[in-house]
Amino acid sequence: MRTEIITLDGHIIDSLTLSKVLDILVSTGVDYEIRRFEIGKTHDETSHAEILVRAPDEESLQRALHEVQQHGAVISQENAKLQPAPQDGVFPDGFYSTTNLETFVRIEDTWILVERIEMDCGIRVSRTDTGWRAECVPLHRARKGDLFVVGTAGVRVTPAPRREAESVFHFMGSEVSIEKPKARIVQAVARAIRDTKASGRKVLFVGGPAIVHTGAAPYLERIIRAGWIDVLFAGNALATHDIEYALYGTSLGVALDTGIAETHGHEHHLRAINTIRALGGIRQAMEKGVLKGGIMHACVVANVHVVLAGSIRDDGPLPDVITDVMQAQDAMREAIQGVGLALMVATTLHSIATGNLLPASVTTFCVDADADTVIKLTDRGSHQAFGIVTDCAFFLKELAEQLCGKE
Amino acid sequence: MRTEIITLDGHIIDSLTLSKVLDILVSTGVDYEIRRFEIGKTHDETSHAEILVRAPDEESLQRALHEVQQHGAVISQENAKLQPAPQDGVFPDGFYSTTNLETFVRIEDTWILVERIEMDCGIRVSRTDTGWRAECVPLHRARKGDLFVVGTAGVRVTPAPRREAESVFHFMGSEVSIEKPKARIVQAVARAIRDTKASGRKVLFVGGPAIVHTGAAPYLERIIRAGWIDVLFAGNALATHDIEYALYGTSLGVALDTGIAETHGHEHHLRAINTIRALGGIRQAMEKGVLKGGIMHACVVANVHVVLAGSIRDDGPLPDVITDVMQAQDAMREAIQGVGLALMVATTLHSIATGNLLPASVTTFCVDADADTVIKLTDRGSHQAFGIVTDCAFFLKELAEQLCGKE
Amino acid sequence: MRTEIITLDGHIIDSLTLSKVLDILVSTGVDYEIRRFEIGKTHDETSHAEILVRAPDEESLQRALHEVQQHGAVISQENAKLQPAPQDGVFPDGFYSTTNLETFVRIEDTWILVERIEMDCGIRVSRTDTGWRAECVPLHRARKGDLFVVGTAGVRVTPAPRREAESVFHFMGSEVSIEKPKARIVQAVARAIRDTKASGRKVLFVGGPAIVHTGAAPYLERIIRAGWIDVLFAGNALATHDIEYALYGTSLGVALDTGIAETHGHEHHLRAINTIRALGGIRQAMEKGVLKGGIMHACVVANVHVVLAGSIRDDGPLPDVITDVMQAQDAMREAIQGVGLALMVATTLHSIATGNLLPASVTTFCVDADADTVIKLTDRGSHQAFGIVTDCAFFLKELAEQLCGKE
Amino acid sequence: MRTEIITLDGHIIDSLTLSKVLDILVSTGVDYEIRRFEIGKTHDETSHAEILVRAPDEESLQRALHEVQQHGAVISQENAKLQPAPQDGVFPDGFYSTTNLETFVRIEDTWILVERIEMDCGIRVSRTDTGWRAECVPLHRARKGDLFVVGTAGVRVTPAPRREAESVFHFMGSEVSIEKPKARIVQAVARAIRDTKASGRKVLFVGGPAIVHTGAAPYLERIIRAGWIDVLFAGNALATHDIEYALYGTSLGVALDTGIAETHGHEHHLRAINTIRALGGIRQAMEKGVLKGGIMHACVVANVHVVLAGSIRDDGPLPDVITDVMQAQDAMREAIQGVGLALMVATTLHSIATGNLLPASVTTFCVDADADTVIKLTDRGSHQAFGIVTDCAFFLKELAEQLCGKE
Repeated sequence: MRTEIITLDGHIIDSLTLSKVLDILVSTGVDYEIRRFEIGKTHDETSHAEILVRAPDEESLQRALHEVQQHGAVISQENAKLQPAPQDGVFPDGFYSTTNLETFVRIEDTWILVERIEMDCGIRVSRTDTGWRAECVPLHRARKGDLFVVGTAGVRVTPAPRREAESVFHFMGSEVSIEKPKARIVQAVARAIRDTKASGRKVLFVGGPAIVHTGAAPYLERIIRAGWIDVLFAGNALATHDIEYALYGTSLGVALDTGIAETHGHEHHLRAINTIRALGGIRQAMEKGVLKGGIMHACVVANVHVVLAGSIRDDGPLPDVITDVMQAQDAMREAIQGVGLALMVATTLHSIATGNLLPASVTTFCVDADADTVIKLTDRGSHQAFGIVTDCAFFLKELAEQLCGKE
Repeated sequence: MRTEIITLDGHIIDSLTLSKVLDILVSTGVDYEIRRFEIGKTHDETSHAEILVRAPDEESLQRALHEVQQHGAVISQENAKLQPAPQDGVFPDGFYSTTNLETFVRIEDTWILVERIEMDCGIRVSRTDTGWRAECVPLHRARKGDLFVVGTAGVRVTPAPRREAESVFHFMGSEVSIEKPKARIVQAVARAIRDTKASGRKVLFVGGPAIVHTGAAPYLERIIRAGWIDVLFAGNALATHDIEYALYGTSLGVALDTGIAETHGHEHHLRAINTIRALGGIRQAMEKGVLKGGIMHACVVANVHVVLAGSIRDDGPLPDVITDVMQAQDAMREAIQGVGLALMVATTLHSIATGNLLPASVTTFCVDADADTVIKLTDRGSHQAFGIVTDCAFFLKELAEQLCGKE
Repeated sequence: MRTEIITLDGHIIDSLTLSKVLDILVSTGVDYEIRRFEIGKTHDETSHAEILVRAPDEESLQRALHEVQQHGAVISQENAKLQPAPQDGVFPDGFYSTTNLETFVRIEDTWILVERIEMDCGIRVSRTDTGWRAECVPLHRARKGDLFVVGTAGVRVTPAPRREAESVFHFMGSEVSIEKPKARIVQAVARAIRDTKASGRKVLFVGGPAIVHTGAAPYLERIIRAGWIDVLFAGNALATHDIEYALYGTSLGVALDTGIAETHGHEHHLRAINTIRALGGIRQAMEKGVLKGGIMHACVVANVHVVLAGSIRDDGPLPDVITDVMQAQDAMREAIQGVGLALMVATTLHSIATGNLLPASVTTFCVDADADTVIKLTDRGSHQAFGIVTDCAFFLKELAEQLCGKE
Repeated sequence: MRTEIITLDGHIIDSLTLSKVLDILVSTGVDYEIRRFEIGKTHDETSHAEILVRAPDEESLQRALHEVQQHGAVISQENAKLQPAPQDGVFPDGFYSTTNLETFVRIEDTWILVERIEMDCGIRVSRTDTGWRAECVPLHRARKGDLFVVGTAGVRVTPAPRREAESVFHFMGSEVSIEKPKARIVQAVARAIRDTKASGRKVLFVGGPAIVHTGAAPYLERIIRAGWIDVLFAGNALATHDIEYALYGTSLGVALDTGIAETHGHEHHLRAINTIRALGGIRQAMEKGVLKGGIMHACVVANVHVVLAGSIRDDGPLPDVITDVMQAQDAMREAIQGVGLALMVATTLHSIATGNLLPASVTTFCVDADADTVIKLTDRGSHQAFGIVTDCAFFLKELAEQLCGKE
């Protein structure tokens, strides 16, 4: 029989924290006894609980402790255990696997914030001139000998805040459904974007080619030119069809002004790619006067930090596309520093990829015509994402009006 | 071996008519020989074909003839065969089963137009003071002794016109896909509505409760008040949530102004129904000053012909709802006379029910967030329907702007 | 300032009850003070809380009390207030609107169970020879002068039990997703059906016509013939296409043995309906030897209680279909007495209609290829429903093997 | 005014070829006159047509000719025009953009088959020791100075064969719908796989991780071990969750034997990747005795040609994954040589990527729970794909039984 004392502090009743922790203990097969419990008598007072945990063996104990940690339980005042990576690109056995929640590790009796927190990584600890430093590191960037946290001791996680019951976000987040008041939701997104910018944090836009196919590119272009977007993640397809539209007025060969599929038009995207490749890239095509408008043009003008990540579907691709997916991921990791809000529109691949990299503290909206994309995103751990099941063309039109005024 | 001569006239090459007819003959296992063929040399000239059909037996022949009839093949100059209904609500054996295409029957050597054409019915023929009359009759309205057409002889069908390749409708109809230029599509719908009204035909709107849940009711209300809608089909749910919104500001308990689910709010729809039941109906609630706005209010003011059809999901229902489904169908049949365009938004049940009743000549748009609804509609024979996969709230907002101007 | 004392007893921490109650109080804008709190020290001990609620006005208080009632809070030991219905089909103002949770009303200081509990109804109280009786009554069955509960006093609700974290149902119910281990889920459904039958309760099957279109009818037929189904709810379409298949081997004209759409086949369903109408009904068609197999045949042989409810989509309909939707609802209400498990497959309309009528205590599975159906069902209050997003043909095949063995 | 004579030969009436060609001419705004027309009198006889095309300008003419070429029209007996690539990775201006249909180019008065035909590429012509050679080349593999075909002259395309009306494939392909007889469809797929193997061509399987999540991995494993699959395309996710299942019995942390989400389980996939990375790869993990089962294990044992292509969603990735998407595409191009049938299951990304590379002559099945994936695939030019909207777990179970017998 192995035991441990865990403590919980704060609004642990109405945040469901206490309930969840007890629930986890029971479901992982460990026994508990509440040693001390001081309940906040009113809405404003916090509560305090001390719980003795009794597990049949060390493995069960560790499993339970790791899980309750994610809900803010503080386990002990032990220091984190560290072990070196055995080779490049490999973590030591028993490595602590991160979530996307704010995390601290205890090194030499001090709690240190883990930088660049991101799910499914390890925590690398290093001594610097100014003291210890902890950072989140993906597998492929581990170097032989780097020290990584192993086990659960000495790790503290700040649980995700509850969504306020009164807020529109609570409502939006509660269930993924098409049957929601749409104009209110777009207003809420616009307000969140304004708040993010006002607080000095960056806004990230992640988009798929359906934005162009559905005729929504001019709305996104308007939002970008007005300076609302700081970072844009997309693939070769969005950029290509955007440029196809700028050069030929079509997307996938469909004339967006008339809705008519042009004979021959299916080739336009390939000719657009060839043109940009011949010129050396998007910026060069602008400088030569060939590319005169569109989303990518607006990004260059508005100085948006763009990362175009390649995929195996790509034709071409454009010279601006990063074809190595790990390099693309790393470029995305750099670009999200300082981001406070992510707006993902009409792309499953890029939404999930970005969701993997974002801390849970980033306000995240995922807009898709298909509820499945949103379900997949949250299934994969981006629990903070608010799903908005709607048509991306109308969503962006409405958002552009909210942010930039009616035209 | 049974044979028959069929003839085809018109733009039978570029309308695909000839190809389809030959295809049907082959796939039904009958042999053919093209006896005469005069091809139109240019786009404007029509062609003429005479085809000898050879089938192994009478049943195969009839099957093939019936099918090619639907593509405009004229089979013979025989008169239609008539038989009396054996009892009320039952057609004679071998009854001719209608499609929704324009149909003529030959009686005493004269081709007579079948009135009120509708799929899955019989053709009742009767002698009136002014001559023979043929009308489409659903099963439950057959009366013992009524004369119905049996077999395929003496029936001529006008095939559906092809969608013009240059038109946005061609494009829209080609495939059900979310990835289409949306603003263009709404423009095309608005133009079709204007054209229909200008030509003196009626516009039918068929809607589901998601219109209210998504906050789109004010847009629809605006379109109705501006006089664009002549007939409205819906169920208890649309009317109830519309009235709930008018009385409480909520839909399914969600406050549409804030997007927040009110505690207690789930009862509002039932209280709304109870209020209207106590007053005797929608019109009475308006007269008493209780109901002051909303879609149903607008319909009364704008003199829209409303049919509210009941379903087993209904709470209440409102006194205005027809609870017998066959009576409701018949009320819908009356209401569609003179309709030239049907716009179906966010309802599978009512869309398919209406599609069952409409002639193929009625321009039909089916708007739904889910491609499945559109696929089901065309699977069930409403091939004329243009599917628009989008969000009904944004669609109606855009349509209101197109029809009534920006607010 | 209005105040009230509420009490909570049981596993109120780990069931989340206490958290939810405090949450509701805060979000409805009322203040609270925890007067007494005894926490269960271990998993087995229950807790007890007494909470003083302070609201700014009576309306806020009632709103908050009504809501916390649904989570098991006992408000006072007052008796319920009763008022007569002002006219047939109308409840008195301020009527208590039911949920589908087990409910008691306090009459003359005694808690009486509300019979036939169902959401969105009123509670009618009457004195009988053996004492007071309370029953759930839908709007259309209220009679002038009947006594109904008004307000929240004297009503106690048993909250829904939590889903056990260890069970497959917990997992299934947590999120609607296509990405779940399917064979395990079917095993769990089969086990639940066995358990229901073993406990003497009935199994209800609710199905749509896609069961026939996808070739799954023989699997359902097998399950019925083996005696696993006691009650079947469907519409005209399921019965019609089942009979079409029995008579012609097609469904919607598609030959199910070959998958090929027969020319002419689209008429088969209408000819099938005409045949049954001529004979007077399904049972009569069996007696005359015309109908020899299929789902409906199996139901008659296995003595299943069938309710076929009409809809405005219906052709015909079959004589066995109840065309008045309120009569159909009432027939369904009778038929669900004693039902312990409901299995809903491939029908949105009938699933939601049935969900409206079922107490929350009935284990409910909703199987559909489209996540939207499941989302709609729970959006409309059937929170107990487990959504299974899968193909109904393969689901029923697997279920038949689980229940009846491999063939 | 520019003119050209085009000729059509074969079953051009019942294959719709003539109709389509005339339709294209009209819709591209060019005039035509049928100069000569010999119609096949019976089903077995071929027809012959000579059509004079008159266009207002050269551009319209070229556009029309290019389009009718895709339907088999032979334009002239001119030789193809060739121009050198101006730089690496760039085609010459006006390059002929390929479709996925069988294509010939005329060089020095001889028609030469274009090797490795694939959509959205150029045609490179080179002189070899044994004569001229033409091959399909993607943009990134063009080398400065390579000769590419420009314009439409001297190109001949074999149009796609019609789907036989009698076949189950005709039916399957006609519309994407969930409402199809499923068992028949799986039988048809199994028969097509047997036919492909019997004819000496290879079978390609393309799969996504939902195969593992839904518990379908053992069925796929069985099919692979029985030797039915020659080539497998997937991403890091399928391989990772397969190995997670082999090592931990979970997928995304859900225990597939019980359907229960394990606490801690979300880390399993990362630990699985770390384990394989430490060992050097999948084959090495098998040799060390660590990896003892699963899909990837079966592929190594059965000598399946595996290409794992990276994406930006990937954790890790496994050492076997190609992280550069252009390299991955090229590896896929090599692997599809000799493939006669492609079965794509539960992956949008890899299905579309593979569809881009396959000639139209490869029988292609796309299985997905979501009709959207199938619609996207055909929207992007893989018109030959048969969409099967169903659950992948049950599909693979049924397919394994069809191919390998009941267990």
